[in-house]
Amino acid sequence: MLRRYLPVLDWGRRYDRATLASDLVAAVIVTIMLIPQSLAYALLAGLPAEVGLYASIVPLLLYTLLGTSRTLAVGPVAVASLMTATAIAPLAARGTPEYLGAAVALAVISGLMLLAMGLMRLGFLANFLSHPVISGFISAAGILIAAGQLPQLLGISAGGATLPAIAAAIAAGIGFTNPATLAIGTTALGFLAWARRGLAPRLRALGLGARPAAVAARAAPILAVAASAAAVWGLDLQAAGVAVVGRIPAGLPMPALPSLDPALWTALAVPALLIAVVGYVETISVAQTLAARKRQRIDPDQELVALGAANVGAGLAGGFPVTGGFARSVVNHEAGAETPAAGAYTAVAMAAATLTLTPALYHLPKATLAATIVVAVLTLVDLGAVRRTFAYSRADGVAMAATVLITLGAGVEPGILAGVALSLALHLWRTSRPHVAVVGQVAGTEHFRNVNRHEVVTVPAVLSIRIDESLYFPNARFLEDLVLDAVARDPSLRHIVLMCPAVNEIDASALESLEAINARLHEAGVRLHLSEVKGPVMDRLERSRLLHTLTGQVFLTQFDAMDALAPEITRATLAAPRRDTRRRAQAAR
Amino acid sequence: MLRRYLPVLDWGRRYDRATLASDLVAAVIVTIMLIPQSLAYALLAGLPAEVGLYASIVPLLLYTLLGTSRTLAVGPVAVASLMTATAIAPLAARGTPEYLGAAVALAVISGLMLLAMGLMRLGFLANFLSHPVISGFISAAGILIAAGQLPQLLGISAGGATLPAIAAAIAAGIGFTNPATLAIGTTALGFLAWARRGLAPRLRALGLGARPAAVAARAAPILAVAASAAAVWGLDLQAAGVAVVGRIPAGLPMPALPSLDPALWTALAVPALLIAVVGYVETISVAQTLAARKRQRIDPDQELVALGAANVGAGLAGGFPVTGGFARSVVNHEAGAETPAAGAYTAVAMAAATLTLTPALYHLPKATLAATIVVAVLTLVDLGAVRRTFAYSRADGVAMAATVLITLGAGVEPGILAGVALSLALHLWRTSRPHVAVVGQVAGTEHFRNVNRHEVVTVPAVLSIRIDESLYFPNARFLEDLVLDAVARDPSLRHIVLMCPAVNEIDASALESLEAINARLHEAGVRLHLSEVKGPVMDRLERSRLLHTLTGQVFLTQFDAMDALAPEITRATLAAPRRDTRRRAQAAR
Repeated sequence: MLRRYLPVLDWGRRYDRATLASDLVAAVIVTIMLIPQSLAYALLAGLPAEVGLYASIVPLLLYTLLGTSRTLAVGPVAVASLMTATAIAPLAARGTPEYLGAAVALAVISGLMLLAMGLMRLGFLANFLSHPVISGFISAAGILIAAGQLPQLLGISAGGATLPAIAAAIAAGIGFTNPATLAIGTTALGFLAWARRGLAPRLRALGLGARPAAVAARAAPILAVAASAAAVWGLDLQAAGVAVVGRIPAGLPMPALPSLDPALWTALAVPALLIAVVGYVETISVAQTLAARKRQRIDPDQELVALGAANVGAGLAGGFPVTGGFARSVVNHEAGAETPAAGAYTAVAMAAATLTLTPALYHLPKATLAATIVVAVLTLVDLGAVRRTFAYSRADGVAMAATVLITLGAGVEPGILAGVALSLALHLWRTSRPHVAVVGQVAGTEHFRNVNRHEVVTVPAVLSIRIDESLYFPNARFLEDLVLDAVARDPSLRHIVLMCPAVNEIDASALESLEAINARLHEAGVRLHLSEVKGPVMDRLERSRLLHTLTGQVFLTQFDAMDALAPEITRATLAAPRRDTRRRAQAAR
Repeated sequence: MLRRYLPVLDWGRRYDRATLASDLVAAVIVTIMLIPQSLAYALLAGLPAEVGLYASIVPLLLYTLLGTSRTLAVGPVAVASLMTATAIAPLAARGTPEYLGAAVALAVISGLMLLAMGLMRLGFLANFLSHPVISGFISAAGILIAAGQLPQLLGISAGGATLPAIAAAIAAGIGFTNPATLAIGTTALGFLAWARRGLAPRLRALGLGARPAAVAARAAPILAVAASAAAVWGLDLQAAGVAVVGRIPAGLPMPALPSLDPALWTALAVPALLIAVVGYVETISVAQTLAARKRQRIDPDQELVALGAANVGAGLAGGFPVTGGFARSVVNHEAGAETPAAGAYTAVAMAAATLTLTPALYHLPKATLAATIVVAVLTLVDLGAVRRTFAYSRADGVAMAATVLITLGAGVEPGILAGVALSLALHLWRTSRPHVAVVGQVAGTEHFRNVNRHEVVTVPAVLSIRIDESLYFPNARFLEDLVLDAVARDPSLRHIVLMCPAVNEIDASALESLEAINARLHEAGVRLHLSEVKGPVMDRLERSRLLHTLTGQVFLTQFDAMDALAPEITRATLAAPRRDTRRRAQAAR
């Protein structure tokens, strides 16, 4: 029991010196990558840069104790930072203590939600987010984040939560572009964009192995940070109007209780839930991808607990919401991390950086951090996925396109909520019209197939319908419409047989529909039969009234049903030579 | 086309004198029933009594032109009236012009919503309301309505939107009970309760036929109305404190535009949607029940149009939301109505009543109307259904019990919204964990069955999993967990075969999961195969990338798959004597 909730007890026992060495190397590399990212994402969330450092210490320690992934690296990430900024914007002004307090509360609330979901095993709630919706949302969020960094690169102050708002703000401010900032920003942007593809080959040409080169190339952002800070200091570019990070308080964060103001918690409940669910979905997919490579397993419910604790820890240490970062976890994995202890060493290194490096960060230009954000988030954008998804499934494509457009046009919260609502509605719409087939007997066999696709024998007085879907509330009314329409259309009908080999469930709504159909058919002089009902479904039906009131019978097979209702026909058909059962050319669904 | 939207063009052509006679008789009987109900439900909605009469004229004429049910009787009903009162209570005080204006706007908004759903063929949205939720809601609403009438029967003024609030108000006011009102109320209640069961047999004993007696018994409320109004007038009970309906403006309602205040429309949007959907679900189930008796058919999408037009008409004529009433439609049907024209004649009769009877209604005690409401709504209450539903399906029973309790404890809107949310969540929870079975070959056959239920042959390097559910976003992650767990658990595994005979759909989320599983299995050195993929599902997969990247193959049958992956085993198993395929005693699901 204790081991389930504390996976560290499991892997910690087998920890040896070789593992320690691997984990330490990975921790150093992740730290080099994490320092600029944590500063940048704190600014993206509208917070002081040091809050990013604070959010990269305690959460990592907690994840080490509680997480089941060997290589997941938690910390501040781009999308959650944008969602944090959006959530707090209506509640407090940037730079105020209230703003920071709301960010802290947001981390605690979303952490408690994740913890509760984990302890109550409610991870399935994340299923509300379909792949197309989350993928469209991440793409759109990436575009919003990148666009939102343009003012920083231009050295103008402008903001906005939607693409039109950002565009309007840039258009209004572009005349005030600061040339020195623009120079630093574009240089950093160019270097980082080149480094993403060009640095590793160059390092390999210099004699480095393929994997060390790929890992070392991840140090490009810290190089950009160091070089641009040195340039600002050396050339006194602050005097030329370059905005810098400025003074960062020395020392580690002091633990503090978040605000417990009920009004604040109510206002943050929905954003906290969205951050929790989006963060969890991203975390779990990264963790599963990496675990599969080594045939390891992760426990999705325990990941909720670990991520929840990490967020509560982030909040209590004065930080903001954290998540498992994709790029960072891949680097951790590729750099050789073997256990979650690598995360703990990263946390120690981040604490050391917080204690020692902050004076050096004084001259760091914000434009460099904006450039690291732009280069990082553009990898999240994959708009071609909308086209691919649409080609595969129009409903999914529509849900995805709507998520992208509403996120860009109306902001992150309306975007993701609309996506969830739309994918649920489309799901309901699809399952509300299940595939059904009128079936007949294939001559020479006991098989019954779709009359539209095969040459089959049917009897006018008996209508056999195969339903290719579970019967439950989204399609309960469909079945009523279908059967009653058939009866209204054909006055010679005496029997209806529902063939149920693909019916995996009959819920209470569908049961009531079947009872209503049975009663209405009875009044119309038609008997209702069932055939090929699956075992578990039958077990349940035996607890209902339906089997007592059913005007017809439940047959083990469709052939038994037809043999009982029209024996002379089935016997003759069975004795006949087997007919051509190929699909008809004009096959209709 | 025109005929689809105007069903009157269809049945109107064949209208003859015999049909006219039948329809006229039915119209007279329905009118006698409708006069007290329309007055009572207007008071229940917090409106002046005459508004009930206004809502019983124009909507009936519109439904005659547009409806597809031959016998549905639309008009004010109990549940929609309660929902109207609840919706408007926070916006305006009873008796004010603003209150009436909001009721009118509510009818127009919910009518426009129904019209839009009908024209866009969005009737499937009503599927969000599962049977257990709607049935629990109707029961709870019936209890709330009956409880809410007790103060009227006691002659005290008290109200409340929840059962605790009503109970508290009655406890506070019971000391002020008016004896004369209580006498009238209990007499009317006793007479109506007796009449519901006892009047028809008594009329039959007097020589009336069974059906005429049943229909005539429906006149009991108008007898109670007439007798109690006469008593109040003759005994001057108004002086004794009996509350009466009072002066009703003479004449028909003048058409008027509703308020177009955007704030009002926004505030009424959710209640209007709930009234529209609940009203539609009730209407459609009544209409289908009655149509099936005569092997007629109704068009659910056209019913949305007809009900929508009826509600817009109700609003423009100064009325409030209307719905197809169950008891009233059954009476109409039993009294012999053959076409929707009976509704038009009812409308004319209601108009005549509005013009002539209003002076006679002056002395009608409100307690009598309260008694008619109590007797009518108690037939809606069926709390035993919660127990029956729970016995059949625990998830459905929980959703139903929650709907009842939240409706009673927190009011109609929270009740129905919680019910919808809960049934969607439970549905998602159930389908997120579909039934899956590891399968093996039955000796002596080409069949593959569940290893837990049958004696079968399996091969260590090959894992065959049958999935008994469509693959879509609620269970996409489940499949990933399942497969990756299996791989992590068994290092000897080389092939996984997903057997898909029960997979009716693979949506974009599941496709991405399959692609992710394929890629992760590839990294772990395991190949992924599919077998028995259905035709329409395969058509779609052929438009995706999956078939190009799949490390394994797609097999027509599971036997083909095993025959390709472990030929020596399948051949040997096939040649072996057929083993016992009975379910094992220890069969696990």
